[in-house]
This record gives sequence, structure tokens and C-alpha cells, in this order.
Amino acid sequence: MQRHFVAELEALKSDLIRMCSFAEEAIAESVRALLERRKEIAEAVMRNDSKINDFEIKIDHNVVDLLALQQPVATDLRFILAASKISNELERIGDHAVNIAESAVQIALLPPLRPLVDIPQMAQITKGMLRDAIDGFIHASPTLCRAVLLNDDIIDNLNRKVVAELVALIRKEPEVVDQALEYIRVSRNLERVADLATNIAEEVIFMAEAQIVKHHLERKTGSGS
Amino acid sequence: MQRHFVAELEALKSDLIRMCSFAEEAIAESVRALLERRKEIAEAVMRNDSKINDFEIKIDHNVVDLLALQQPVATDLRFILAASKISNELERIGDHAVNIAESAVQIALLPPLRPLVDIPQMAQITKGMLRDAIDGFIHASPTLCRAVLLNDDIIDNLNRKVVAELVALIRKEPEVVDQALEYIRVSRNLERVADLATNIAEEVIFMAEAQIVKHHLERKTGSGS
Repeated sequence: MQRHFVAELEALKSDLIRMCSFAEEAIAESVRALLERRKEIAEAVMRNDSKINDFEIKIDHNVVDLLALQQPVATDLRFILAASKISNELERIGDHAVNIAESAVQIALLPPLRPLVDIPQMAQITKGMLRDAIDGFIHASPTLCRAVLLNDDIIDNLNRKVVAELVALIRKEPEVVDQALEYIRVSRNLERVADLATNIAEEVIFMAEAQIVKHHLERKTGSGS
Repeated sequence: MQRHFVAELEALKSDLIRMCSFAEEAIAESVRALLERRKEIAEAVMRNDSKINDFEIKIDHNVVDLLALQQPVATDLRFILAASKISNELERIGDHAVNIAESAVQIALLPPLRPLVDIPQMAQITKGMLRDAIDGFIHASPTLCRAVLLNDDIIDNLNRKVVAELVALIRKEPEVVDQALEYIRVSRNLERVADLATNIAEEVIFMAEAQIVKHHLERKTGSGS
């Protein structure tokens, strides 16, 4: 029984790692579709979202089984509950990638706008946050996770800057409103992904240090969009 | 022990009901602040968000204790896990109310735009969805929850309509871009609240019928803005 339990926990960890890879790739590919104006890449992101959703269903199922059959306590219990929450965050990240992919399709149909330097940078930082949060979870490293919290502020500032620039652009050239609104949507979705990576990091810190960072000093009020 | 366990479950239920009331009120008040252009109501919404956050922390704590000390199985286990997820959804709904309140503050500083009939209607339907989802949870009623899923489509359509109208307005009168963007943000936040109420409804249906509605027929791909 005990050996079986350890194997089940390892399987849960490995499912989360794979789910996270899919979520990371979905973000990377949706932004690539946007920048390269390639509809077929965006469509692949939308199609592949079901794989991320299937992981959430599988992980939820395993969590219920583990809790019911093994009745874990203390560290194992906290780990399993965190896994369940994190899989939910990853599923949401997949949904945001789909939103970005939808914007990519729309933008590909419209005349190009001058290059937006901050959006690829936002995507880059966000992907790093996601990877650090999951690595932090796997290795139970609050240090990695604290870096994620710091990056969240950088993303919030970039999002504000991007939105302000696009609003100024609409005011000057109202004919580009459609493209500009899609880019604002992309920026806000990236900012939401960063928030979700931050939630994962907070979970890990909470788990590792039994310390509630959430809703306190290190977090601003509200959560984006 | 058994009687203690029943009392703990009842306390969990009652915390969720109270948390839901706060979330409903936050949505109602943020929209009222927006429509009546009253900054002080918006500020109260932002201040009160910490009460919703405190409920999430309390419920999470109780969930861990219940699982560790009582080691529940079957129906009780599913109920407790659902309670944990639902409190997380309610906390996010609170964050969206804060976003709407932030937009209300901005909008109050800008010249008024012609009245937007669809936004109060969206708010009304969304609040109803939230109440039905929680009532469905409390009474384990999948019927109530299925109505929530249907309303989600209505909200998605209203959101699309509101955004399209505002984009057309920006094109015609670029000087109102700031107000229009805030209203788009409000509309998308209401649409996200409807998505979260839908998630709660799906949880309940899953719990009550052990049937995965999620990610299948009754749901469209992606989840909003």
C-alpha cells in the first residue's frame, strides 16, 4: 500500500509537469501565431486546448482517489490539495492561450500595426514565471517562487504601458481600433497568465512554509484584467 | 466524533453561503458605483474585498483540517473538495468586482457616455447565475445548475454585442476612447464572473451526478475574454 502510494504521488507530479509543458507551449505558440500572423498555428493552439483540459480531469480524478483510498495527512495531504489547485490554474492558462490565439486570428485578417516590442517581452517573462512556479512546486522551493512574485509587478507595469500606448494610438488613428483592441486583449490575457503563475507560486510558498502570502503584503489588491 | 463532523460540514456550508453573499454584493455594488458615478461606493467595494479573501483562507484551512482529521470518503469527500474549489471561484469573483470598481472610479472622472442598457442587464443576469449556482450547491440541485449553463450563452452574446457597439462608437467618436475602453473592461469582467458562476454550476453537476459536463458538449471552447 505504502509503495503504491509513493508511486501514485510520483505519477501526479509527472502529470502536472506534462500539463505545465502543454500550457507553456500553448502560450508560446499563441504569441508566435500573433507575431507571425499565422492562422494555422493559432488554430492548433485552440485544438490542443482539449489535451490540457483532459489533464485537469485526470488529475482531479486521481486526487479524489488518493484522498479516498490513502487518506493522507500532513505534507502529503497539502501536496495533493496543491496539485489539484495548480492543475486548475494550468487549465485556465490554457484558456487564456486560446483567447490570445483567437486575437491572433483576428489580427491576421487586419492590416498590420507597427511592431509592438513589449508584447513578446511580456510573453517571455510570463513563460519564465510559469516554469519557475512549477519548478518551485516540484522541488518545493519557495526561493524560486518568490522570484515569480517579483516578476508579477514587472508584467503589471508592462501591461499598463502597452494599454496606454494603444489607447493613445486609437486616439490618434481611430481607423486602427480593431487591431489595437485585439492587442489590448492579448496584453490583458498575458497579464492574467502572470497572475495565475503568481497564484501557483503562492500555493507553493504556502505549502512549503505554511505561511499565507496570499492576500497580504506581497500582493496588490485585485487581480488584473 | 461523527456529530462533530456533521457540525463542521454545516459550518463549511454556512461560510460558503456568507462568502457568496459578499461576492454577490460586491458585483451589485461595483455596477451601482459605475452607473451612479459614485466613487465612494467603488472604494467600499475595494475595501470589502479583503472580507471575501479572508473567507477563502478560512475555508481552505477548514478543508485541510476536515480532510486530515476526519478522513472523509465518497459523498462527503466530494462535497469538501467542491467547497474548496467554489471558495476559490468566489474569491476570483471578488477580484472581478474590484476591477469593475476601478473602472467605475475612472469613468466617474470622465465625461458621461450615453446610457448603456446592456451592462445593467448583464449584471442582473450574472448575479442571478451566481445565486443559482450556490443554491444548486447547497441543495445539491443539478436542475438549478443547468439553468446557469444556459444563461452563460446569453451573457457571452451580450458581451459580444456591448464590445461591438463600443468599438463602433470609438470609430465614430475617437475622443470617447477612454470611457469606451473602461466599459469594454466592465463588460468582459462581467462575462468572466458569468464563467466563474458556470464553473461552480459544473462542479455541482459533477458532484451530484458524477458526470463530467466540463470541457464537453455543454461548454464552448475557451472561457471568455
